[in-house]
Amino acid sequence: MIRHTAVFRLKHAAGSAEEASFLTAIKKLVAIPGVEKFEVLRQVSPKNEFKFGVSMEFKDQAAYTGYNDHPDHVAFVQTRWIPEVAAFTEIDYVAL
Amino acid sequence: MIRHTAVFRLKHAAGSAEEASFLTAIKKLVAIPGVEKFEVLRQVSPKNEFKFGVSMEFKDQAAYTGYNDHPDHVAFVQTRWIPEVAAFTEIDYVAL
Repeated sequence: MIRHTAVFRLKHAAGSAEEASFLTAIKKLVAIPGVEKFEVLRQVSPKNEFKFGVSMEFKDQAAYTGYNDHPDHVAFVQTRWIPEVAAFTEIDYVAL
Repeated sequence: MIRHTAVFRLKHAAGSAEEASFLTAIKKLVAIPGVEKFEVLRQVSPKNEFKFGVSMEFKDQAAYTGYNDHPDHVAFVQTRWIPEVAAFTEIDYVAL
């Protein structure tokens, strides 16, 4: 199991139509083959600058690579993530 | 549901007895009332500096506060986390 997460902050104002549009778009990543336990979440700790998170799991590295290379993921990164995300950190977990 | 996570790096060398001792100690937090879905994980993304993570869930803020204030958590923070953790970020999620 590999749990891939990204915690992020958007350039958009909280509650804006642009924010809602981004959140609708990111939720479509659930349809990419190999994605399991997909979640889009609100980040609520005041100890960091991020407002949202996305979390998903893959059964192995091949599934994770398949997701990363999938045209729908590549297109999302280019057309939505890069232009609309102000800051982010990727955190990936495996069992200890 | 509140998912509380902390991603961290220890002052200890990888594979050291001190590292193993810390990981044994942190796993005991599972016994604090209110803690659900407790996991200690290895962080594997090369895009951040952290090597481990801990994740747990609480049913509500009262359960989270009860954990934070529990003497076993307070003692762990004072005697192990503060002296042995080199860097960390806390990330807390709720449903969007």
